[in-house]
Amino acid sequence: MPMPRTRPERKKDTLLRLENDVDAWVATAGVDGEGPCMVPLSFLWDGETLLISTAAASPTARNLLADPRVRIGVGLTRDVVLIDGTAQTVRPGELSQETGDAFAAKTGFDPRTLSSPYLYFRVRPVWVRAWREEDELAGRDLMREGRWLD
Amino acid sequence: MPMPRTRPERKKDTLLRLENDVDAWVATAGVDGEGPCMVPLSFLWDGETLLISTAAASPTARNLLADPRVRIGVGLTRDVVLIDGTAQTVRPGELSQETGDAFAAKTGFDPRTLSSPYLYFRVRPVWVRAWREEDELAGRDLMREGRWLD
Repeated sequence: MPMPRTRPERKKDTLLRLENDVDAWVATAGVDGEGPCMVPLSFLWDGETLLISTAAASPTARNLLADPRVRIGVGLTRDVVLIDGTAQTVRPGELSQETGDAFAAKTGFDPRTLSSPYLYFRVRPVWVRAWREEDELAGRDLMREGRWLD
Repeated sequence: MPMPRTRPERKKDTLLRLENDVDAWVATAGVDGEGPCMVPLSFLWDGETLLISTAAASPTARNLLADPRVRIGVGLTRDVVLIDGTAQTVRPGELSQETGDAFAAKTGFDPRTLSSPYLYFRVRPVWVRAWREEDELAGRDLMREGRWLD
């Protein structure tokens, strides 16, 4: 059994995951009496925010347009990075060419080329936690109120 | 690139995952103005329902007591089983010895032995979908309104 990771180790592992993982679980609050929504989506991390994209008509997009609060799970169920964040809507025409290209290169999916309408959402983390097993539940907070803990 | 799986193949793979996977992502609607909640939890499948357990004071338990609708993601982001279900609260004293033992044996975690209060929730699937990549988005519905599709 490895020792619980220190906070700096967890932050390093978390940033590696954000840089290298392609997919995440994205949970949003249902609107108009719908139940909770959670789907896998690809993302691009720019060092400060996660960029995701989904069909404008999808439940995730409709939910985020009504309530920008989102929870994102990256990694495996026993090597979790859990992020609460706020999503800002970005229409494809508002995205820089460079960022759109970087998103397409990382995810293998380019919403700018699709005939049906897509939206991007830029998610700014407010609260980040990372843990593996029970022994890492203590000390799992890495960011609070948008600031990385020292 | 493998061919998209047929519905019987997806159902077989889905039941294997429900039988053998230990952990799932569990999404619930926040109550009292809280944002969406999603956490990894262990589960036991009995052929018809998933049994999960969490601290009675946790956001997931509080959410499910207020609104029993839950979405559960099993598997990886590119080999997904997505379940919408309804959670019935089961207090530890209401659980049969046999089921409690089976839960502990599968998950390695026995809420009956803990000093802090835990609740079980029995989740009955209403809607089940399974897909891997884009080419499997068509035909992903396996259960609707609580009934497996033929």
